[in-house]
Amino acid sequence: MSLFIRGAFIEGTPRSILIREGKIAALLPSDAPLPGPEDGEGGEAEAGAGVARVIDGAGLHAFPSFKNGHTHVAMVLFRGYGDDMPLMEWLQTRIWPAEGRLTEEDVYLGARLGILEMIRGGTTFFNEMYWHRPAIVRAVEEMGVRALVGCTLIDLGDPKMLESQQREMLDLAEGRIPIGDPDRVGLALAPHSIYTVPPDVLRWVGELAGRHHLPVHIHLSETQEEVDRCLEAHGCRPTVLLDRLGLVNSRLLAVHGQFLDEAELALLGEAKATLVTNPTANLKLATGGIFPYRAAREAGVRVCLGTDGAASNNNLDLLEEMKIAALVQKHREKDATVLPAREALAMATTTASEAFGLGRGGLEAGAPADLVLMDFSGPSTQPLHDPVSTLVYAANASHVHTTICAGRVLMHDGRVEICDEAEVIGSASEAIHRVLEGL
Amino acid sequence: MSLFIRGAFIEGTPRSILIREGKIAALLPSDAPLPGPEDGEGGEAEAGAGVARVIDGAGLHAFPSFKNGHTHVAMVLFRGYGDDMPLMEWLQTRIWPAEGRLTEEDVYLGARLGILEMIRGGTTFFNEMYWHRPAIVRAVEEMGVRALVGCTLIDLGDPKMLESQQREMLDLAEGRIPIGDPDRVGLALAPHSIYTVPPDVLRWVGELAGRHHLPVHIHLSETQEEVDRCLEAHGCRPTVLLDRLGLVNSRLLAVHGQFLDEAELALLGEAKATLVTNPTANLKLATGGIFPYRAAREAGVRVCLGTDGAASNNNLDLLEEMKIAALVQKHREKDATVLPAREALAMATTTASEAFGLGRGGLEAGAPADLVLMDFSGPSTQPLHDPVSTLVYAANASHVHTTICAGRVLMHDGRVEICDEAEVIGSASEAIHRVLEGL
Repeated sequence: MSLFIRGAFIEGTPRSILIREGKIAALLPSDAPLPGPEDGEGGEAEAGAGVARVIDGAGLHAFPSFKNGHTHVAMVLFRGYGDDMPLMEWLQTRIWPAEGRLTEEDVYLGARLGILEMIRGGTTFFNEMYWHRPAIVRAVEEMGVRALVGCTLIDLGDPKMLESQQREMLDLAEGRIPIGDPDRVGLALAPHSIYTVPPDVLRWVGELAGRHHLPVHIHLSETQEEVDRCLEAHGCRPTVLLDRLGLVNSRLLAVHGQFLDEAELALLGEAKATLVTNPTANLKLATGGIFPYRAAREAGVRVCLGTDGAASNNNLDLLEEMKIAALVQKHREKDATVLPAREALAMATTTASEAFGLGRGGLEAGAPADLVLMDFSGPSTQPLHDPVSTLVYAANASHVHTTICAGRVLMHDGRVEICDEAEVIGSASEAIHRVLEGL
Repeated sequence: MSLFIRGAFIEGTPRSILIREGKIAALLPSDAPLPGPEDGEGGEAEAGAGVARVIDGAGLHAFPSFKNGHTHVAMVLFRGYGDDMPLMEWLQTRIWPAEGRLTEEDVYLGARLGILEMIRGGTTFFNEMYWHRPAIVRAVEEMGVRALVGCTLIDLGDPKMLESQQREMLDLAEGRIPIGDPDRVGLALAPHSIYTVPPDVLRWVGELAGRHHLPVHIHLSETQEEVDRCLEAHGCRPTVLLDRLGLVNSRLLAVHGQFLDEAELALLGEAKATLVTNPTANLKLATGGIFPYRAAREAGVRVCLGTDGAASNNNLDLLEEMKIAALVQKHREKDATVLPAREALAMATTTASEAFGLGRGGLEAGAPADLVLMDFSGPSTQPLHDPVSTLVYAANASHVHTTICAGRVLMHDGRVEICDEAEVIGSASEAIHRVLEGL
């Protein structure tokens, strides 16, 4: 499959982009002719040219596609189902009873809906933690995106259940269960948190991850209560506990990280670990914290950006998340220069590519062909003094014109090509209404 | 002009909406037949029915249109022109030099662009403070929206300039200068702030406003510095100063109000004054404060919502603003129940109608026909458990399907009908590039 994007702006300069076999093959001048066929590519040539499809990028702005550093994708099923409620009441009266009734098929249908939303918003990768892993992998493979799909571990007081989760994790890590198309699906070990997984099991996860070079995806320091309880139970703060258990290293993907102190940030920075901040969900659930972005960066931690699940956001729009991340950091530091637009963009693109093993994240020859074309011609994105500022501070998902993942066009000119959009939306809606009717 | 919207959801129930002469004439069952002609309406009947235009609202959700409680509309010209900069550096190196070169025609062109953006986002009213009032009135009248256009007063150290501003204010208040179409344009007296207008002039403004029953639109307590300087210069906090000068009453429209203490809120509440919060701009400029929403409500203050200008937001999307307002309040109070979706919606609709003298703000017979139809059928607004939650937490301007002001359709099915959209965007862009080229 090859693709030629004729004349889109890249950092202000019109260029043409040649894509072959899922990668950016070359950036060319905007008036470069259509390249000729390569060996073995004659079959897909169109009108004698060496590319299967040509996209007119005139007036559009190309950026790397967005990477969602943390979500529970099937939770789009619970979008708007219980907002403005105290956390425990919300979980006990809304989320848990409904989640308990979700079948693997429901999760598949929910995952498709969430992925469809992300495609419309220019997101081609997500780092996922939820139940029914195979359902999510199936949705990822069908919808043409990439994901790191966590094998989730949580101890809800039933030792048999935990044991069975550990067996599955072991089978996945050791290759006895298929993980998914290696080109687009990766495996992470995803113990839920330090307060829902016992220390000995966390140590076991760390050893398993080390043996098989797997990332570990875990919630960390989302609330002050988590820190206080850790201090009480273990005499140390959460990151120190994780470090003692062997989990603090460059493969750690720790999520939220709102209540980290300097020593913890130093530990994470030295290990070249990754923190994923989810500002919208943190604000909405009223945790009271704000991610220590400046200190994390100064400590050398990689910082990425996530939406969290749509029960606590309530959309999966990385563009909105970039803006809110930049806003809350300026507020936290009382300094308008903190987290400028270019850094917010990097958190959702190049830094994420590095953190999630997605290869070079920029728009350059050799990089994976994961990119978006943005349409800034409308009144809310004009005049256009600075495309990056416009992207981060003025745009939202509706300004995404074209989404491309692994060289494949998933959406073009606002039309989703990878699935029957109405069917995906309708099936998910039917599924959740069936689930809730039974409650 | 009459209009019939057939079968849109209003608070979950499908209804038809009959609009005559700029007002909602009746809410009818969704299957009600097209009403017959009223006396004198035969001329606009279509196919024998008594309405000039029928809109199919099937599947769409009707809400009151949004009211922007504070903006500087022509500043869309500076969208993205100098983000992430310290306030004074930004003003001195970017905004002031460029603003100094704006002609009345530039402001007209900028105002049209900003209004076009607001129409696309479902906003039909804005409370405005800027230069070149006639240019803004002209744009408001042409674009079919409503506005309270402030007569701005600011003392930049030139007594002659201030005097001339006062003369204009007097002429406007006393009716010697036309204000604009009384159906859609209102006048406010808009002294910029307590630190840019001397106390004796503020007292004069208050007396003038009292004599002519005019609202007073003023920035108040945006920064801690403003409070500290007021304490130093006047021995009291800003609201107390305003009260001493005769400005605290039910016609006061005070904007920002981030650093108000309990006594100030009590003063404002007792006077039934209005506060307009602009959370995005406040966060972006890193003022360090968060509007005391809960305390303001408890004190009985009317609280509305604004975007501020697009140099500090960088869009005029009230839907995004509702979400960010709700998020920061939950954060401030460490309580997820604060500022629930319904209250955020009221701030931008019914409460604003009350505060800005726009008549009854809900969707009911007799109310002004200022409304939107929202399309929630896409993947980011499905499944639809709760239309108000979806509106506030999941939607943005792109979900607005139809915008109606004073019974006139300004946008329908994503197509702007009130102007030549490309011309409005192109002219504004040319204007600002001409201005900046000269710098």
